[in-house]
Amino acid sequence: MTVQIYDTTLRDGAQQEGMNLSVADKLAIAALLDELGVGYIEGGWPGAVPKDTEFFARAAKELSFEHARLAAFGSTCRAGADPATDPQVQALVDSEASVVTIVAKSDIRHVERALRTDGAENLRMISDTVRHLVGSGREVIVDAEHFFDGYVYDPAYALSCVQAAFEAGAATAVLCDTNGGMLPAQVSAIVSAVRAETAGRLGIHAHNDSGCAVANTLAAVAAGAEHIQGTINGYGERTGNADLISCVANLELKLGAAALPGMAETTRIAHAVSDITNIPPHPRQPYVGSSAFAHKAGLHASAIRVDPDLYQHIDPVAVGNDMRMLVSEMAGRASIELKGRELGFDLTGQADLLAAVTERVKDAEAAGYTYDAADASFELLLREEIAATGGPDAPRYFEVESWRAFVEHRAASPSNGERAMDDAEATVKLRTGQGRVVTTGEGNGPVNALDQALRIALVGTYPEIEDFALTDYKVRILDTQQGTDATVRALVTTTDGANTWSTVGVGTNVIEASWEAIADAITWGLLHHGVEPR
Amino acid sequence: MTVQIYDTTLRDGAQQEGMNLSVADKLAIAALLDELGVGYIEGGWPGAVPKDTEFFARAAKELSFEHARLAAFGSTCRAGADPATDPQVQALVDSEASVVTIVAKSDIRHVERALRTDGAENLRMISDTVRHLVGSGREVIVDAEHFFDGYVYDPAYALSCVQAAFEAGAATAVLCDTNGGMLPAQVSAIVSAVRAETAGRLGIHAHNDSGCAVANTLAAVAAGAEHIQGTINGYGERTGNADLISCVANLELKLGAAALPGMAETTRIAHAVSDITNIPPHPRQPYVGSSAFAHKAGLHASAIRVDPDLYQHIDPVAVGNDMRMLVSEMAGRASIELKGRELGFDLTGQADLLAAVTERVKDAEAAGYTYDAADASFELLLREEIAATGGPDAPRYFEVESWRAFVEHRAASPSNGERAMDDAEATVKLRTGQGRVVTTGEGNGPVNALDQALRIALVGTYPEIEDFALTDYKVRILDTQQGTDATVRALVTTTDGANTWSTVGVGTNVIEASWEAIADAITWGLLHHGVEPR
Repeated sequence: MTVQIYDTTLRDGAQQEGMNLSVADKLAIAALLDELGVGYIEGGWPGAVPKDTEFFARAAKELSFEHARLAAFGSTCRAGADPATDPQVQALVDSEASVVTIVAKSDIRHVERALRTDGAENLRMISDTVRHLVGSGREVIVDAEHFFDGYVYDPAYALSCVQAAFEAGAATAVLCDTNGGMLPAQVSAIVSAVRAETAGRLGIHAHNDSGCAVANTLAAVAAGAEHIQGTINGYGERTGNADLISCVANLELKLGAAALPGMAETTRIAHAVSDITNIPPHPRQPYVGSSAFAHKAGLHASAIRVDPDLYQHIDPVAVGNDMRMLVSEMAGRASIELKGRELGFDLTGQADLLAAVTERVKDAEAAGYTYDAADASFELLLREEIAATGGPDAPRYFEVESWRAFVEHRAASPSNGERAMDDAEATVKLRTGQGRVVTTGEGNGPVNALDQALRIALVGTYPEIEDFALTDYKVRILDTQQGTDATVRALVTTTDGANTWSTVGVGTNVIEASWEAIADAITWGLLHHGVEPR
Repeated sequence: MTVQIYDTTLRDGAQQEGMNLSVADKLAIAALLDELGVGYIEGGWPGAVPKDTEFFARAAKELSFEHARLAAFGSTCRAGADPATDPQVQALVDSEASVVTIVAKSDIRHVERALRTDGAENLRMISDTVRHLVGSGREVIVDAEHFFDGYVYDPAYALSCVQAAFEAGAATAVLCDTNGGMLPAQVSAIVSAVRAETAGRLGIHAHNDSGCAVANTLAAVAAGAEHIQGTINGYGERTGNADLISCVANLELKLGAAALPGMAETTRIAHAVSDITNIPPHPRQPYVGSSAFAHKAGLHASAIRVDPDLYQHIDPVAVGNDMRMLVSEMAGRASIELKGRELGFDLTGQADLLAAVTERVKDAEAAGYTYDAADASFELLLREEIAATGGPDAPRYFEVESWRAFVEHRAASPSNGERAMDDAEATVKLRTGQGRVVTTGEGNGPVNALDQALRIALVGTYPEIEDFALTDYKVRILDTQQGTDATVRALVTTTDGANTWSTVGVGTNVIEASWEAIADAITWGLLHHGVEPR
């Protein structure tokens, strides 16, 4: 079976709340989609959206695709109109896209209440528009909007819309679950019924409102659909469209029914698209999520060591992802051994060391630490325990004597013209092998000021830290029932441009916790740059 | 059909990367789950995880459930062991939970390679453990781990594990897709086959690795399962467990096959759980996501207003969610009017005021404020706008001149016997009608010290605040890509013993943000105690 892969990230995906793509963003995403290997890229609605008109013009000049064809999205002509003179239809032709997808009503209630016309005129609009576009040399795809709800209400009318599209020369009629509320059994039954009555290529366009978009897509393919529509990362209005990567990975890796030339690159491409949309990737996203192949349970870890295939549904390499072991209080010695191996430490057979590390992780987690998302802090802990059991010393780059941070707010005083003022300042006193340093930093807040002061204190001795930049900073108040008096955990992510590492700190206040995470981040960075304490 | 609803947020959900629940968190989530109305709450693994042992002990004393029964999770006895003397099994009995769920291997490969025993001994372990627990008066549920993969490899053996469980007296055997890679058609075929061979109650436990956890759960129910397991917000290892709310909403609202007494509260409860786990809610989550019923105004805006049922798959009120029109001021004003009414302000027909408040909320939300969980701050904003449009003045109890906070850390100096020292201090300068006050407070951290200083400054003028206590304090870093330099949001919950109110503050650092939320909390409290500014 060959299933066409049609991506609508740039059109239906862009309807997602909070997404706002520039033309440059769309061009960059289109290039990634072609690299992934989709067959069709729906670029937008030229004519209706000025940005989309520009996108098609620039795409024609600037992009050359290896796999994909660009599709322009639009609508049938208006009620009573001739497509040859309808400016909206003309804009689709003008876009020069070789594929045109038009949305057509197929639920009689929408024809009457939203279009305010009758069933026969709607069929005429479909036929005439398809015929006009086919006549202008385009491959025409018809998106039958609200098809499933329409079919449940009036099967004969919904079917007549699909038949009108095929009779006028449409290459594909796509059955759309526009409101997203269908369940797989319904989709299966309805697609089978349509398949029995028509001969043209059927497609499926699912939304995730009932949490079944991927399953609905698979159900439609099993019932005879040969064209699937979806978006990268499941972007889209409300709960989003079908996640195209999950759909294709299931079809390709489990059912042998479709293939993406770039399947082994999907994780990287999904994250690159996320960087462009600036919508943080969902860690639990199937196949490509950062947690998708991350194992935490101690129960599993001991067996994973023996036989990883027994614990993962596919080899993560197939989608460019990795298996990861998480360290947590639930983890036993086996997962710590595995984690050690992942970090480059062979702990096999070192029962005492494993017991000591396991114990220390348990105690630390009870105190509020978490190492799931802080590999670098875990590695520092592991090195300390290795040193404590007679192994090589963990390097110490600096000894902190004290630090203090200060933040001040002064209200505006309109009477004597003073504006509001916020000030944050921190002082760090520490020693390296080169002597004692006292430095002061300023910042937006006390933690930022401390971070600055620490960098100023160390950069003379360790110029390598100039390359280190904080990229993520998270704070969590633990035991929130204690009010402002509770334990605080800070997670810091740092990069040197090439690598990224995460550290954790815990304290009775946010500044203490952040200090620990920041200091650990610098230690780990220096260590991994091969720097010797100076 | 009656389907049992079994929640495993506190056990399998807690396996999620980055989740680390305290005993207090678990107790709070359990109370919410009972409010939702689930039949079973799996609380953890007493004996194996010390925090879980404590949870069961405290739950027995502190919680009384209206709907739910507490289930302790554990394992069959070890190979070669007698459950009566196996300490892990004994801990399950000691937990005093009336329901015990034990995990049992049902894939012969896992029996041989992970348990390192043979098929017959595994069946003996299942039988003996179930019989022992039933004998001690427990309702016993057997989670048949890796059941689907095991069934595909060796159907007879997988089935024999389920049969052994039923023969020994298990109330329910739960077929687990532990690796999460099944697709609905496979689940349907396998559950039907098992249904044909057994008479006991079958359950389904799905993971979302192929993006089909909800659909797999529905497929199993259609094939005869009468017990479903899942987690709130789909938390869980890797891609998570089946999202229990999506499963039940589909079953209840679309198939009439299950019911949750608290269904109309699901959105609030899902978000409250998310506040406790401090894992940001996914906006596109089916049914309860903030975007789940949000429509981008455009093509069908007017049609949606005329006939919303044509554009949504269910009435969002059924799950306690709301339809939202994005980029539609009408919808914004309507919801503010509604919110005002909820707080005791009749804003009907006050178009200017509604427009001003809508505008201000929009600006504030863009800056990082959120009023969903901060009614008290919203009320103060509303009162200011009422005053600005000629209504009664919003009371001002104090005018802040300035504040500052200071935190210092001094490392231990073993050489001269000094211990590590942490110090936090804050000074507040403000005016009330009774004059200028300058006070200093100390605390665990800078925010706690500021809170103390503000209370000391005000208590002379407003002794009422002695009754106010902070009960919850949360901080979230927005735009985390900015590192320690990002915007910070603080949410504070305060109680006077009788009432509880929540306020929000935003700033470039945690102290600024917290100060705003704390100051608002005192103002709202004084206002609602009928105190006049003095």
